[in-house]
Amino acid sequence: MLIKNKNYRTVWMQDSFVYMINQQLLPHKFEIYKSKNYIQTANAIKTMIVRGAPAIGATGAFGIAQAALGFKGTNFEDFKEHIEKAEKILKSTRPTAHDLFYAIDFIKEKILKNSKIKNAKDDAVKYSNEYADWSAGLCRNIGEHGNRLIKNNQNILTHCNAGALACVDFGTALSPIRIAHYSKKNVFVYVDETRPRNQGSSLTAWELTQEKINHSIIADNAAGFFMKSKKIDFVIVGADRIAMNGDVANKIGTYSKAVIAKENSIPFYVAAPLSTFDIDAKSGNDIPIEERHEDELLYMHGIDENKIMRKIRIAPQESPAKNPAFDVTPAKYITGIITEKGVMKPTKEEIERFAANK
Amino acid sequence: MLIKNKNYRTVWMQDSFVYMINQQLLPHKFEIYKSKNYIQTANAIKTMIVRGAPAIGATGAFGIAQAALGFKGTNFEDFKEHIEKAEKILKSTRPTAHDLFYAIDFIKEKILKNSKIKNAKDDAVKYSNEYADWSAGLCRNIGEHGNRLIKNNQNILTHCNAGALACVDFGTALSPIRIAHYSKKNVFVYVDETRPRNQGSSLTAWELTQEKINHSIIADNAAGFFMKSKKIDFVIVGADRIAMNGDVANKIGTYSKAVIAKENSIPFYVAAPLSTFDIDAKSGNDIPIEERHEDELLYMHGIDENKIMRKIRIAPQESPAKNPAFDVTPAKYITGIITEKGVMKPTKEEIERFAANK
Repeated sequence: MLIKNKNYRTVWMQDSFVYMINQQLLPHKFEIYKSKNYIQTANAIKTMIVRGAPAIGATGAFGIAQAALGFKGTNFEDFKEHIEKAEKILKSTRPTAHDLFYAIDFIKEKILKNSKIKNAKDDAVKYSNEYADWSAGLCRNIGEHGNRLIKNNQNILTHCNAGALACVDFGTALSPIRIAHYSKKNVFVYVDETRPRNQGSSLTAWELTQEKINHSIIADNAAGFFMKSKKIDFVIVGADRIAMNGDVANKIGTYSKAVIAKENSIPFYVAAPLSTFDIDAKSGNDIPIEERHEDELLYMHGIDENKIMRKIRIAPQESPAKNPAFDVTPAKYITGIITEKGVMKPTKEEIERFAANK
Repeated sequence: MLIKNKNYRTVWMQDSFVYMINQQLLPHKFEIYKSKNYIQTANAIKTMIVRGAPAIGATGAFGIAQAALGFKGTNFEDFKEHIEKAEKILKSTRPTAHDLFYAIDFIKEKILKNSKIKNAKDDAVKYSNEYADWSAGLCRNIGEHGNRLIKNNQNILTHCNAGALACVDFGTALSPIRIAHYSKKNVFVYVDETRPRNQGSSLTAWELTQEKINHSIIADNAAGFFMKSKKIDFVIVGADRIAMNGDVANKIGTYSKAVIAKENSIPFYVAAPLSTFDIDAKSGNDIPIEERHEDELLYMHGIDENKIMRKIRIAPQESPAKNPAFDVTPAKYITGIITEKGVMKPTKEEIERFAANK
């Protein structure tokens, strides 16, 4: 992704350092966090310096590589034990992140196939970089497939941040928009603020600013108004999990936008890699919805006039809040799912056909 | 309304003082603003110490009464000129507030019917108080009619603040909820935060806290989730203007909630006095939508850990926002309109029948 006219990834490794865009400080400050060892990398995942399932996956892979490079002994059994300790620490940071587990298992297997520590260290670096490249490539492919659906001069609504910052690069929902922009199509993006955590107005808007893609932040409440006023041609969102019948779990509010899009005959697309499909979920009913802390609604973070970060309370002291973090959009509201292998209809048959070719 | 276990109105007059709940400070601080003369009262309307069309109407009436009481001369022509100066200043505070104009014209007519200044002063006090009582009574009637629709143990969703604070007392959308609570029904209120100005999480939640009515603040994004999960039995919102075909203009986000309520077969009611009907608007297409300043979305107000009021920026410096303040909900999504004369279907025939009996 372009930031201050330079190409960046969300996370990368150089020598034994892992570098990450510090997402705690965005959109107010752009800073690269430099992690010296796997303990610091684990901590960066935990404190959300890096966030978004694909980005966390790659960061976990780099963390294992750091652990390998940091080993000072000569005994392979000790080396193995050291890697397994790092695995445990890295996996414990975000216990529900499927990509993190997958990436760490992948690198660990490649490393421990060796018998010499030097070869294992070389493989750790090689395969963690390959993993990150593969992850970025998936997102690029999603962008290429999605771009074919976007016409010149279209107005696109997106929700939350399914951008490059959540991935290694390109993003999922933002990837088709990026590729459309790179291929000189004129697009305008309506960015849902995405309460309560404001990932739209903080992260998505920031990415679009950096890429010089025209956009406006809107209140989540205003998305329906713009759809009904025929100002929106197209909706693209990401997905946290997709059931085998095409029901999609994604950031709270996605369901509402999908219902209103259908009511106004506006195409509603979900962009996600095939790894987002959960073969254990027959339908959306099998996907549990995480309830997060009420403080996400009752307090806000931002900078004051002196650029000092502040946390303020915006609700009465006595009022409680309910904060479901995700909702499930039934397949009937979804026009198509944009994957790295192409665009599919959200039906059992199509999903099984794509899954077979994964 | 109950506040700290005492009965209050949003605005009232005693001797020559007008008292108002200072809504600039809510929900963080409860304070009564005391206005000494009509100039201060005009300023209180302008700076939104008092807000909400019916509350502004009564405040304007009291402002005219203050002007009458404050006149020191003996010549009735001078008195008349003085009242007209006050009228001009009071009407210029919020130029689109229909109730403000209506209330001021009503009092002015009553005052200037007299020929003696003393009688005019007496009438000013009498009729401004009558106006406020009448306005509160309308809202109470809306509450009584609406209460008949609410069953024990129901969960009700509301949007924005159509509460007592926007009126002289009781509110419009909150009045049925209040009366249901007073009549010992157990109700639970889901309070839409109502971005961008957060009237739900600041004012509605505060009113419910004071009345000890069970509630939770939710993100506007979560309303659909709770409707689909069958947690909401009933929706009540207020209205800014209603067209003669039953289309309703109200706070941005109302349209979205109405579409999702219909999709989930949940009754969706609008509560508003008959004065909200605009005989010049045949349909919602005739109602202009105000676009407000983008800063309402890009900044937030609240109190920090030391209870100091802060304004913080929550979006990138370079990102613009679009901020439509209202939307139009077509009549087909509305189950009924709760007025002071009873509940009507949102059809041309019903509206004309009620209007004839206004």
